[in-house]
Amino acid sequence: MKKIINAVADIVPEMVSGLVKSYPQLVAQLPNTQAIGRRDAAFKAGHQVGLVSGGGSGHEPLHLGYVGLGMLSAAVAGQINTSPTPDQIYAAIRYADHGAGVLLIVKNYAGDVMNFAMAQELAEYDDIQVKAITVDDDVAFDATDTQGRRGVAGTILVEKICGAAAEAGASLDELAALGQAVIDHTKTIGIALTAATVPGVDHPGFELQADEMEYGVGIHNERGYATEKMAPSATIAAHLEDKILGNFDLQTTDEFAVVVNGLGATPLMEQYVFANDVLADLAKRDVKVTFTKVGNLVTAIDMHGVSLTLCQLQDNWHTLLNAPANTIAW
Amino acid sequence: MKKIINAVADIVPEMVSGLVKSYPQLVAQLPNTQAIGRRDAAFKAGHQVGLVSGGGSGHEPLHLGYVGLGMLSAAVAGQINTSPTPDQIYAAIRYADHGAGVLLIVKNYAGDVMNFAMAQELAEYDDIQVKAITVDDDVAFDATDTQGRRGVAGTILVEKICGAAAEAGASLDELAALGQAVIDHTKTIGIALTAATVPGVDHPGFELQADEMEYGVGIHNERGYATEKMAPSATIAAHLEDKILGNFDLQTTDEFAVVVNGLGATPLMEQYVFANDVLADLAKRDVKVTFTKVGNLVTAIDMHGVSLTLCQLQDNWHTLLNAPANTIAW
Repeated sequence: MKKIINAVADIVPEMVSGLVKSYPQLVAQLPNTQAIGRRDAAFKAGHQVGLVSGGGSGHEPLHLGYVGLGMLSAAVAGQINTSPTPDQIYAAIRYADHGAGVLLIVKNYAGDVMNFAMAQELAEYDDIQVKAITVDDDVAFDATDTQGRRGVAGTILVEKICGAAAEAGASLDELAALGQAVIDHTKTIGIALTAATVPGVDHPGFELQADEMEYGVGIHNERGYATEKMAPSATIAAHLEDKILGNFDLQTTDEFAVVVNGLGATPLMEQYVFANDVLADLAKRDVKVTFTKVGNLVTAIDMHGVSLTLCQLQDNWHTLLNAPANTIAW
Repeated sequence: MKKIINAVADIVPEMVSGLVKSYPQLVAQLPNTQAIGRRDAAFKAGHQVGLVSGGGSGHEPLHLGYVGLGMLSAAVAGQINTSPTPDQIYAAIRYADHGAGVLLIVKNYAGDVMNFAMAQELAEYDDIQVKAITVDDDVAFDATDTQGRRGVAGTILVEKICGAAAEAGASLDELAALGQAVIDHTKTIGIALTAATVPGVDHPGFELQADEMEYGVGIHNERGYATEKMAPSATIAAHLEDKILGNFDLQTTDEFAVVVNGLGATPLMEQYVFANDVLADLAKRDVKVTFTKVGNLVTAIDMHGVSLTLCQLQDNWHTLLNAPANTIAW
């Protein structure tokens, strides 16, 4: 698989460097790390609670692209599909802390959960208040799987809603409770037509025939729950909605946010066709949608596929979703 | 080639519908067209000069994603790789006009140039003042080619700079002159590792071997000027810079805007690695860059490749590039 890279081992540092060089007005690289932090005036002057996230690389623009006013204070990039190390997460926590504490937004993968917890301990040893929440929005599999459900595209809704609340002055305890509530009300499933090819490997992570697709894939090339014949976009949309809506305790007063997410190699043309089917079908089901976002937001390297996320909006979340943000990718 | 679509003939209407349904606060579809227009309060209240662009589909987010405050007033989507019809362009002109006239931003393809000219005639017959500028930023081939140079990713810089100036009250004559000046100072070249597969066709538009790449591709799957062995990102960056910089009359006081553009199926990871090489190499050449944008901005369906654009900034263009915009994709 051809890729626009230099040495495989240099991809992550070069990617982080390229991003920071491209947007120096928004972000700066923290010394001796693959972590970046906000550098806007509001952050420098502020006493807000800090928000830190991170994880393995290959999901760009997650998380680096969501650092900035109204979202993350800092983000840490691990090697591809590999958790960042505790010392680098700790550096991001220190950068993000203004004395009001730091909320860690962690996707539910064993390595991330462990390394963020170790970084939290390091920070607490330094008297920095830290709380962590774990995003597990992927409902492709039951929550009784060994490590629970995975954290996928719904993560950006947690980052956006908590980021806006932090900017407005919410406390660390309030943000941890808010973030957990967003996680509890956010569900995602992904599908792939072609698996991702990890750099340095010559073939996709799993094989699908020219007429096959996979329901329930993860963003690290995890296979899903069913390999089926290719279906029209409208059929895929209806199937994913069935699965997702079955995971909500639906109320007649519900309002939802919808995220249609391209997994890396999916043209926007296809994403908008799919969004059209999703929104038409949700309207038919009398599911009210008040916020939609479409794009390559949380990717799986060069996977050809999409994910669908629904968030059952509570309280003032709609306002927080629409609050100003100044990041590379939101 | 698998795609997330329904019927091939429905792709463009479904895509336009999906986009408008996803972002109803920003844009509305013009009746009986595949055109969309701004619907923000500033536009409705305003007497600004209107800005209209459009072209064949397959280049999303161009142009639909650049409709909104500070950029286009309206945009028209043709069928895939096919110019929109004059009547639909004319509808967009009528929508965009507030009495101060309308500037047409046309990419240099024979069909677009012809159809936008016919729409201009229709509008002038209705006493709407219209001027048109033709973007031809692709320096892969000499300008002496039959139809001149193609309009590619540099188009978004024309749309952004003119859009900001229109918002600030520039006249139609001023905007036409400004847009032409931006075109004259903007140069682009693209490369592909894999050609695009047009929906309904089973194979990429041209064949590249597993170790080959193509220099100088167009956004309609046009082959370039050289098929070569795959090279590292840094080598590609240096080659494209050589070609592009040779097309400028360089001054020691120059400041440049840089656009690194993914062509549809290129992960952001690769785009940032490439941006890192571009910016490092430009720094080595003492070429000063004061604005950078990276992403899938002007695509060629699912082509795997990137383009590089440099714009030699004049006057207040840097300020106009950084002026507020509220669109789906800027």
